[in-house]
Amino acid sequence: MHHNFPAGTNSPLADFVSHIHPVKQEVIQYINKHSFPHFMRRGEVLIRPGEYSSHLYLICKGAVRAYMIEGSKEITTWICAENEIITSIRGFLLREPAVEYIEAIEDCELAGASYDTLQYLYQHHIEMNVMGRKLLEQYYGAAEERNIISRLTRAESKYNYFVERNGHLLNRIPLKIIASYLGMTTETLSRIRKRISKPPKS
Amino acid sequence: MHHNFPAGTNSPLADFVSHIHPVKQEVIQYINKHSFPHFMRRGEVLIRPGEYSSHLYLICKGAVRAYMIEGSKEITTWICAENEIITSIRGFLLREPAVEYIEAIEDCELAGASYDTLQYLYQHHIEMNVMGRKLLEQYYGAAEERNIISRLTRAESKYNYFVERNGHLLNRIPLKIIASYLGMTTETLSRIRKRISKPPKS
Repeated sequence: MHHNFPAGTNSPLADFVSHIHPVKQEVIQYINKHSFPHFMRRGEVLIRPGEYSSHLYLICKGAVRAYMIEGSKEITTWICAENEIITSIRGFLLREPAVEYIEAIEDCELAGASYDTLQYLYQHHIEMNVMGRKLLEQYYGAAEERNIISRLTRAESKYNYFVERNGHLLNRIPLKIIASYLGMTTETLSRIRKRISKPPKS
Repeated sequence: MHHNFPAGTNSPLADFVSHIHPVKQEVIQYINKHSFPHFMRRGEVLIRPGEYSSHLYLICKGAVRAYMIEGSKEITTWICAENEIITSIRGFLLREPAVEYIEAIEDCELAGASYDTLQYLYQHHIEMNVMGRKLLEQYYGAAEERNIISRLTRAESKYNYFVERNGHLLNRIPLKIIASYLGMTTETLSRIRKRISKPPKS
């Protein structure tokens, strides 16, 4: 059984939704009633490969990553922090088993809701589809940016592309995880960071 | 000036939209009036890096790829064929300049519409947002599948993942382009294909 958010306060998910597109009070109340807080300790795993994911979560505090295992190697596929929605994209959207682990890389406070809750809102409140369309435009755009990073082959191009878009994560996420996201060794990443932090010779 | 589709016939884009989610006759008529046919010869380029893309296109016939250039290397980022919508995702969704070339890899018949046409429909016909939300769910899911392919590091895992999802493109798209999509040399791709096509020893 999930607990609810304290009576008289909005669920962080309700606030998140109404910032993207205004929705009726009835929708806010439905989200308040059907969403729930979820806490994770650093290192805790939310979803494993093969599982069907039927929830999505808003990160209220903390950071989370997804990773795959290929042979003996971990490949980080995305890193998310506050004010981002996380789920197994394949599980939630394509209704196929997850191919990734989703793991807390800091202690996390999440706000969760089920697939059924979202479908109910899409079906009964058409303005939720405006919210969903706008949110998915952003997330589709971000997925494409991740795609571009992972297809670049030069370590330095990858790193620069990452810094431009995710600079705020740089001093927060362990170097090992950023390296695994950029598809390079920790040594290569450290070398690039050192080179870039040196002032150019005049 | 764009030409219109012949009077009395629906634009392929209008049919595409109503297959995803039913829309009013008024929407169909608006799409018929504001979409246009566009033809491309194999090798022709639709969008170049740095350009702002303000159109999207449905592929009615043919195949198209997007690619980036890094150093002297072409990196194919996606391949699309009939019944898929193409555009510069960054350009169209994020309103930022394209980072990729979009090129016809076969002679193509496209049906195009502008960003403004789509925004008009989203604003004046709320059910178009249901269509957009459903379409973006599919495309976001597909972007994530591309992400997974490009992050796998073993050539054979990449190839198998591609065949499972895009088997229909295998005998149609030049090997060189598939290899560049999978981030391997044409030689490696040929070797994997030969190995896999051999019946297992009994």
